[in-house]
Amino acid sequence: MAAIRRLLPQESLVYLGDTARVPYGIKSADTILRYTEECCTFLAKRDVKAIVVACNTASAHAFPYLTHKFHIPLMGVIQPGVKHALEISRNKHIGVIGTQATISSDIYAKELKKLDKNTVVTSLACPLFVPLVEEDWLENEVTEAVAKRYLTTFRQDGVDTLILGCTHYPLLKPVIRQVVGEKIELVDSAEAVANALKDLLTKQSLLKTDDEEVVTQLYVTDLPGRFENIAKRFLGESVPTVKRVTL
Amino acid sequence: MAAIRRLLPQESLVYLGDTARVPYGIKSADTILRYTEECCTFLAKRDVKAIVVACNTASAHAFPYLTHKFHIPLMGVIQPGVKHALEISRNKHIGVIGTQATISSDIYAKELKKLDKNTVVTSLACPLFVPLVEEDWLENEVTEAVAKRYLTTFRQDGVDTLILGCTHYPLLKPVIRQVVGEKIELVDSAEAVANALKDLLTKQSLLKTDDEEVVTQLYVTDLPGRFENIAKRFLGESVPTVKRVTL
Repeated sequence: MAAIRRLLPQESLVYLGDTARVPYGIKSADTILRYTEECCTFLAKRDVKAIVVACNTASAHAFPYLTHKFHIPLMGVIQPGVKHALEISRNKHIGVIGTQATISSDIYAKELKKLDKNTVVTSLACPLFVPLVEEDWLENEVTEAVAKRYLTTFRQDGVDTLILGCTHYPLLKPVIRQVVGEKIELVDSAEAVANALKDLLTKQSLLKTDDEEVVTQLYVTDLPGRFENIAKRFLGESVPTVKRVTL
Repeated sequence: MAAIRRLLPQESLVYLGDTARVPYGIKSADTILRYTEECCTFLAKRDVKAIVVACNTASAHAFPYLTHKFHIPLMGVIQPGVKHALEISRNKHIGVIGTQATISSDIYAKELKKLDKNTVVTSLACPLFVPLVEEDWLENEVTEAVAKRYLTTFRQDGVDTLILGCTHYPLLKPVIRQVVGEKIELVDSAEAVANALKDLLTKQSLLKTDDEEVVTQLYVTDLPGRFENIAKRFLGESVPTVKRVTL
């Protein structure tokens, strides 16, 4: 959302965080699909012109089904990261880290190989990264020990590009960088997603042309308190009022 | 459930794990109450004679409301741990660790002081302990570093008893013991809860007297796969078939 807001400042945004039921990364494909569908139904009712499924886990498990079900343009966060990784990788040996659910879906390997069948992919689930970010331990000895345990393998692995396949992970970039070294490019798909959304809206002639007020609406499914603190880490201090909804 | 099964082998048990929506420890009081009520409604419909709310977070936030709402004997896991801690503490300076939601409810301090108003309580949330247990990192350098960061304070604090106020924490006992030292007693409320349940059933003449078959039924709200692996850590290898339900 921060990246989209920067790139498309003239567009109104409706954000929904399913905070009562997160994290999705430890749930089964079936439950992820059901919850994601409920979220999209909520957004579709608010008359949005496009939906970004801004979660790798939800994109990995729900995307084909959702595009079939909803008759508005939908975007996931997997494709833009995949394309960007293939653009910058020289040896086409790409690493992917994500939640348990994203990695077990194998979606990144499938999509990477669909675009370049010679791509070699090394995937790894890092279940403790999300709780570490939620705890706000972005750079301490614990976070370093966790990152070492998960990521040291990528140093010897021959990977030249590592996809951060979870929207929380970019906040851990300094520690991840320290463990994997300077030679591996890190792919944070936020910018790529914002660019792809702009392309999509442009192609479908959906970019805003009137001069109606630009609005940012934030909704969550649990009480807003905890969310507001975490939102500040992503959006900076200027977080609009957050409303609670039941799906 | 393992402790109850050991103490009351003649009783049939119905277990419900709300795996689609865990962890509860990061949710608001309001959401915890709503979800716990749905769980109890499910169990009450299955004609159980008593319900144990076997989660500190749910007990902390939902207990008075649930006893008011359901007309069958209900037990939480806070009271038995509180009583046991007061029995074994000599200096009445007691430490409590738990999830964010349990600690912010301040339920342990309230209940401890209700029974002995001179009790001094030091409470601390340890949000990474549940994800560590779920990752099965029970004794490695990461778990040690996390435990040190959270618990070193208890060494100097004068606490002689530490309540493990979350059902996951007993699996981390060796690491917790290592950090807090040998002089602090650790209170794991599982045995205390099983004993309190036996007392309750005895007093209300609810102990099983017929010779109907003893049954153990396991239900979860997400697909059973992941749950079965974690259940083995608590129950041993002999986990009965797990069924999925929607609440």
